[in-house]
Amino acid sequence: MRRPRRLEKGSTVVEPFDTVDLIHAKRDRHRLDTAQIDWLIDAYTRGYVADEQMSALAMAILLNGMDAAEIRDLTLAMVASGERLDFSGLAKPTSDKHSTGGVGDKITLPLAPLVAVFGVAVPQLSGRGLGHTGGTLDKLESIPGWRAQLTPAEFHAQLADVGAVVCAASADLAPADRKLYALRDATGTVEAIPLIASSIMSKKIAEGTASLVLDVKFGSGAFMKDYDRARELAETMVRLGGDAGVATRALLTDMNVPLGLAIGNANEVRESVEVLAGGGPADVVELTVALAREMLALAGQPDADPAAALADGRAMDVWRRMIAAQGGDPDAALPTPRESHTVVAEADGVLAEQDALAFGVAAWRLGAGRARKEDPVVHAAGIDLHAKPGDSVTAGAPLFTLHADDPARFARALESLNGAYAIAPAGTRIPERPLVAARIL
Amino acid sequence: MRRPRRLEKGSTVVEPFDTVDLIHAKRDRHRLDTAQIDWLIDAYTRGYVADEQMSALAMAILLNGMDAAEIRDLTLAMVASGERLDFSGLAKPTSDKHSTGGVGDKITLPLAPLVAVFGVAVPQLSGRGLGHTGGTLDKLESIPGWRAQLTPAEFHAQLADVGAVVCAASADLAPADRKLYALRDATGTVEAIPLIASSIMSKKIAEGTASLVLDVKFGSGAFMKDYDRARELAETMVRLGGDAGVATRALLTDMNVPLGLAIGNANEVRESVEVLAGGGPADVVELTVALAREMLALAGQPDADPAAALADGRAMDVWRRMIAAQGGDPDAALPTPRESHTVVAEADGVLAEQDALAFGVAAWRLGAGRARKEDPVVHAAGIDLHAKPGDSVTAGAPLFTLHADDPARFARALESLNGAYAIAPAGTRIPERPLVAARIL
Repeated sequence: MRRPRRLEKGSTVVEPFDTVDLIHAKRDRHRLDTAQIDWLIDAYTRGYVADEQMSALAMAILLNGMDAAEIRDLTLAMVASGERLDFSGLAKPTSDKHSTGGVGDKITLPLAPLVAVFGVAVPQLSGRGLGHTGGTLDKLESIPGWRAQLTPAEFHAQLADVGAVVCAASADLAPADRKLYALRDATGTVEAIPLIASSIMSKKIAEGTASLVLDVKFGSGAFMKDYDRARELAETMVRLGGDAGVATRALLTDMNVPLGLAIGNANEVRESVEVLAGGGPADVVELTVALAREMLALAGQPDADPAAALADGRAMDVWRRMIAAQGGDPDAALPTPRESHTVVAEADGVLAEQDALAFGVAAWRLGAGRARKEDPVVHAAGIDLHAKPGDSVTAGAPLFTLHADDPARFARALESLNGAYAIAPAGTRIPERPLVAARIL
Repeated sequence: MRRPRRLEKGSTVVEPFDTVDLIHAKRDRHRLDTAQIDWLIDAYTRGYVADEQMSALAMAILLNGMDAAEIRDLTLAMVASGERLDFSGLAKPTSDKHSTGGVGDKITLPLAPLVAVFGVAVPQLSGRGLGHTGGTLDKLESIPGWRAQLTPAEFHAQLADVGAVVCAASADLAPADRKLYALRDATGTVEAIPLIASSIMSKKIAEGTASLVLDVKFGSGAFMKDYDRARELAETMVRLGGDAGVATRALLTDMNVPLGLAIGNANEVRESVEVLAGGGPADVVELTVALAREMLALAGQPDADPAAALADGRAMDVWRRMIAAQGGDPDAALPTPRESHTVVAEADGVLAEQDALAFGVAAWRLGAGRARKEDPVVHAAGIDLHAKPGDSVTAGAPLFTLHADDPARFARALESLNGAYAIAPAGTRIPERPLVAARIL
């Protein structure tokens, strides 16, 4: 029997719960109530509950689950662990987007200024990438002079003036989540829907946006490979948003192939600027417009026409002001790679496959991502695709180009791409998968 | 997807496994192989695998289990984490006993000298109590002058000369287990048979005994309440002993009522001395003799008569030499309590119940045990029972006496005893439960 340790603790602070009792409860498939979860998250934030206790509990949650009320309590407790921003003084409605992360996913870059065109403020607090899916701040930092850190005053001023801000979240926003997220990564407890949903939603709720659109990806390059799990995550998060008073919708989108033609940092900025100039790859445009429509509808403008604002340069105007407001020069040359390596088609035919995970890992190995959170990224590193599945290719024509600062990186990147793409005989029909597979309202 | 973090670590030490991969494997119900477990325990001992990673893995093991080969690998890896003692130079066979812990369990005290009477050396490395079941070293430290710490030279000399040693284990013995045990206690991962069995057996295998008898308790005052779980633990440990070349047997013994009439430290020494003098409570004598028979049989003396050695004073002689060899004065007065409080029977009848757990917790609250491992124990604190279930009692006659240094402790102890004993009408037949419920060979 475990010792009844709280009984004679002799401590002056009387804690209302015993950490081990709560771990036992979840381990033994009981539910935790609101008071228990509130205490747990508060006690973890202030260091009374130790990391090793929280990781054991996280594993128990991963294996035994949490019901909807527990997930809601966990999310709200993480929100309450720090400050919650308030835009009630702003003369505009607010809307934000969150993506669960994909290969070539630069959608935030064209999307934030596009939505701001319509007078809807986008207060996006974003993160850096860890792993093969990249981070929005890493991409934007390719732009000379651009800075991710804003003071609260700068943040509010830019939101009122420009209408779109993408910057780093302050450490005061959901600090419990920040601590738990780092712990989960090290302890094999990332892939639990209650923990993923509460982590994402606690940050977005604390961020203070009035409405939120989630881009929940499924497929090889996504965090959730499986459609059904991605759908469960999306439904959980939409419900959590509603519970916290944030009008929330989700799109379930396909991440079996990379999004667009650029995977990296500087090249993804370049591609985003193409979209803002009215061009760019069809899939990037499609997803940007689809997400903008949802955000605008939630913000009270169901009839807005975001595609027109891309075509006529209004989104580009906001982009330029958004970048300049954070010290960036929208006209500056972006970093270019020191070394490039192009892979060509071995035969005539149709590009039949292009595995998102393999291309994501390859870009990561080229230096576009970081292995440890303290590592820098190489802004010019990455991959440019010259063909997408369904495109006809001819023998000797370029399929994709790798970019790196050091040519020694090419071999490991190519290793990841071994078997990741295939050319089928000319005339083979490659089935098209819809990019947006479902909407969760 | 989790980042493939080992690929570009830049570290000079190349670890053959990734900690998170091993956590994922156990989390996802795969088995770990010998090389993985060997690396894991070595890497945990040297601090490469962090406590929070090990606690997540421990929870995954608790919830998903381990097969027999994994438990064997885990045990042997923990043995290999430190030194393994070697008594091959000793001119006697060795045998030891381990109890999973019970209320009033002082059996090691009479048992070690009793077995040594027959020329079988007992090299017992023991622990301190944490919780309601008390520790053998705590009990022996009631004896003025007795010291638990011996140098390796003193240990070997006493084993050769006296034949029985009960002392503290060195930190070099199964250090992985030492680290993991403390972690499990704090993280709600104690009650997993693979972890319990490997913890106990790694220490006993490293201790170097050639044979081992396990006293695996079940019932309210035992670590394992449930007979079937206790039996599974016993069978697992007997198999582990055999796998490591230690001839091992187990007795499954009832721990629903306290063992003997004394619960504490000094009073348990006093009761042990009564047994060594040929008296003492019947249950303590029965279990001491039963365990001695098993140990002697394993050491090649199936026909030895331990009961005779208690009756004729030979065991007492060894006890006196064993205590004196470790600086203790076997004739010194033992500590006596400052305060006592006797509870009497409210009516005539038969004592029908005496719940081991409640009495254990009460003794612990009186100061006989410790709440934190750095706390001291109060040697004179504890409980003396004046009746056992089945005994006739008369109104006003003492049922039990509480002892403490501070009378303020009585109220909390009595709280624990509320409903823990009952008097049935005179003539009620109280079913007797066999003390030894099964033998596992």
